[in-house]
Amino acid sequence: MALDWTAAERGGVLKEFRPRRTIPGDWVPAQAGDLLKDIDTPALILDLDKFEENVSRVMALVAGTKVRVRPHAKTHKCGEIARRQVEAGAIGVCCQKLGEAEAMLSAKVNDVLITNEIVGESKMRRLARVALAYAPARLGVCVDNVENARQLAVICASEQVVLDVYIEVDVGQNRCGLAEPLQIAELAMFLHNTPAFHFRGLHAYSGLAQHRRGVPERRAAAEGAAQRAAAARDAILARNIPCDTITGGGTGTITYDVASGVYTEVQPGSYLFMDVDYSRNERDTNGPGFDVALFVLATVMSLQEDRATLDAGLKSFSTDLGPAHPAFEGWRVRNVSDEHTVLMRTSETTPIKLGDKALLVPSHCDPTVNLHEWIVATRKGRVEAVWPVDARGKVY
Amino acid sequence: MALDWTAAERGGVLKEFRPRRTIPGDWVPAQAGDLLKDIDTPALILDLDKFEENVSRVMALVAGTKVRVRPHAKTHKCGEIARRQVEAGAIGVCCQKLGEAEAMLSAKVNDVLITNEIVGESKMRRLARVALAYAPARLGVCVDNVENARQLAVICASEQVVLDVYIEVDVGQNRCGLAEPLQIAELAMFLHNTPAFHFRGLHAYSGLAQHRRGVPERRAAAEGAAQRAAAARDAILARNIPCDTITGGGTGTITYDVASGVYTEVQPGSYLFMDVDYSRNERDTNGPGFDVALFVLATVMSLQEDRATLDAGLKSFSTDLGPAHPAFEGWRVRNVSDEHTVLMRTSETTPIKLGDKALLVPSHCDPTVNLHEWIVATRKGRVEAVWPVDARGKVY
Repeated sequence: MALDWTAAERGGVLKEFRPRRTIPGDWVPAQAGDLLKDIDTPALILDLDKFEENVSRVMALVAGTKVRVRPHAKTHKCGEIARRQVEAGAIGVCCQKLGEAEAMLSAKVNDVLITNEIVGESKMRRLARVALAYAPARLGVCVDNVENARQLAVICASEQVVLDVYIEVDVGQNRCGLAEPLQIAELAMFLHNTPAFHFRGLHAYSGLAQHRRGVPERRAAAEGAAQRAAAARDAILARNIPCDTITGGGTGTITYDVASGVYTEVQPGSYLFMDVDYSRNERDTNGPGFDVALFVLATVMSLQEDRATLDAGLKSFSTDLGPAHPAFEGWRVRNVSDEHTVLMRTSETTPIKLGDKALLVPSHCDPTVNLHEWIVATRKGRVEAVWPVDARGKVY
Repeated sequence: MALDWTAAERGGVLKEFRPRRTIPGDWVPAQAGDLLKDIDTPALILDLDKFEENVSRVMALVAGTKVRVRPHAKTHKCGEIARRQVEAGAIGVCCQKLGEAEAMLSAKVNDVLITNEIVGESKMRRLARVALAYAPARLGVCVDNVENARQLAVICASEQVVLDVYIEVDVGQNRCGLAEPLQIAELAMFLHNTPAFHFRGLHAYSGLAQHRRGVPERRAAAEGAAQRAAAARDAILARNIPCDTITGGGTGTITYDVASGVYTEVQPGSYLFMDVDYSRNERDTNGPGFDVALFVLATVMSLQEDRATLDAGLKSFSTDLGPAHPAFEGWRVRNVSDEHTVLMRTSETTPIKLGDKALLVPSHCDPTVNLHEWIVATRKGRVEAVWPVDARGKVY
C-alpha cells in the first residue's frame, strides 16, 4: 500500500476527496470463502463436519425405535440450524421462551413446543395470537397450575385458538412442574375437558441428571426421571385420558432416555455443539459420543512477554460454568473481564504474535450462543456460510 | 371476559372468523404510562430518580475542578442515556468496542474514545471509515504497540483520515497497555511524528482498583495508578511531546481520581446503575455514594410451597459476579439456570403469588444490560419511556 504522508494533516479529517465517507453497513464477521485467519472477531465458529456428525449420531440412536427427536432450539436459536435438524429427521423443536418459538415458526419450523409455563395476561395473549398467526404449524406450551391453565383457556377462547398443552412433570429438577401423579392427573382432567386446549401429554426434563459426572449416577438419575414420568402418565391413563406424548431427556442422558421405553420424544440441545462442561461428563462407551463443534474466535489484541490479551471476554462467552478454554496447548486463562481474556504462557508449545487468532471452547454453549449475532459455519478451516442467531436475546 | 366454550373445537385452529391472524410485531416489555405490574418480563428496569441523582453526583464531584467527565458507555450501551450524560455536562463517552462507538456516534454523541486497541486489518479499516463518516465528531482509539500503530497509520493514510490516538498505560490491571515510562515515551514519539495520527495523551485505567473492598486499599490502589500515569506523562513531556489528556478512573475510585491532580478526564460507568458487586465496596463517607438504579423484573411463573420460580435466568442477568439478588426480604436465590431463577422462602415477610412480579438487583450491571433489547425507564413505579439498548451485543 503506497503511503502519501505529506498529504496528511493534523487534527481533523482530510479535506481531499473522501471516497468512502459513508457509514459502514452492519458488521458481519466473515464472508463465505474466508479462511479462519480472515474472520473478524469476536466470532462464534461452527465446525460443520463435527456438527453434522453430532446431528447424525442422535438420529442413528433413535433409528428403529418409536422415539422421535425434538431438539432444543434454546441451544442454537438459529432458524437455519433448526431446518437442518428437521431435514435430518427431527419432528420439530423445543423452545424455552415464546420469543424463541416465534423465531422458529418464522423460520418455517412447523412444530414447536415451548417447554415452559407462560404466565401473565399480555404474554398469554401474545402466545395465543402467535399460535393463530402461524397455524397450521403446531405450537405447544406447558402448564403446571390449574389457575394459570384457566386464565390461558379464557384467553385462547377469546382469541379463537385451540392450543396444544402439556403438563410439566417435576422429575428431579425441583424447579417448575408438578411431582405428584394424582395432582398431575387432576390437572390433566381439567386440560382434557377444556375445549380451548388439546392435551398432548407430559414434558418431563431433569437438567440436573444431564451433568452427573459418572456414568452410573447419570444413568440412575435418568432412569429415576423416566420412572416418575411413567407414574404420572399411568395416573392419567387410569382416568381414561389419552396421554400420547412424553417428551424430555437431554444430551447427557439420551442413551438412557431412548432405552427407557417411557419417552416418545427426546429433547437434546447441547449435542450439536458440546462445551467444556459437557466434556467433564464421563463418556458412556455404550452410547454415542458427541464432539465439540462450537468455538469462539478471538484476536490477540495486546502482547507482553508471557501474557496475551484476547479481544473476547464475558460478553462473548458465558462464564457461569467457568471461562472458555483455549483450544491449543501452552496457554492458560488467567482471568476474564467484560471484553478481554488474559492468557498466560505455560510452555513454549504455541508461539503467539499480536494479531493472531485464537480458538476458545466455551464452557457453556447455550448462553454463549445467546451473546452473538452470527454463527460462522466453517468446514476444514474455510467459511461456508454465516447464519443469523435469529432468537438471540429473545428472553420473553 | 365472556367465554363461548361451545364454539371451541379440538385439535386445531378454529374455523370461525380470525380477527387477529397476523404475526405480532416486535416485543416491547412496556409502554409509557404502564405500572410496574403491567410490564412484561424479563425486563430491565431503570429507576429514573436514582439514575438522575447518580448522574448529578458525579458532575457535582468535578464541579470547580479541571477534570472533565467522559462516562463509559460500555455500561449502558444506550444512545438516550449517553445524550443525557452529555446534557448533564459530560464531554462525550468512552466505549470498549468499535461497535459501541458506532452506536454512540450514530446517536449523535460527538466525542467518543475507544478505550481499547483495535487489531486486525479489517477492523482497523472499519475504524478509519467510521471516523471519516462521522467527522467532525471525534473518535479516538488506544495503542500499546508500535507495529499495531504502524499498520493503523497505513490504513488511516489510505482512508485519508487523521485519527485521535492515546497510549494505554498499564497502571495495575496487568492486561493491555505499556507499563514502562521510557517505552511509553518512545511510542508517543512515533505517534506524535505520524501525520495520520493526532496524539492526544494517555488512557490509564485500573479495573482492579475499583473493587478493592476497603476504603484505604481502594484509595491506595487508585493513588498508585495515578502515580504511574503521571510518570508516563512526565516521560513524554520530557521529550517535548504534548500530552494533554490523561483519561481513566472509575466508579469505585472517582473521588481519588479527581483529587489526584493527574487525570484530566474520568471514565465512570457503573455509577449510573450500581449493582450487588459494587455494593460490597466499603462506602467512603468523604465521597459521593451512588444508589442502585437498575433492576431486572421477573414474573413468578411456577410456585410450589416454599419455592418460587422466576422467568428470568442467566440469559437475563449475568452471573459472573454471582446471581442477582431479590430486592425484597424473605426469599433467597437457590439457583439460576438459563431462563429460570429458583427462590426459596426464608421467612413469611413477603408473600408471593403465581404471576407476581419480582425485582432483582443484578450482581454486575454491564454484562446484564448487554443481555437486553430494552431499558424500561420508570419513575415512582410508572413507566416514563422505553429506550433501546443500541449497542447490545456489539462485541466487535
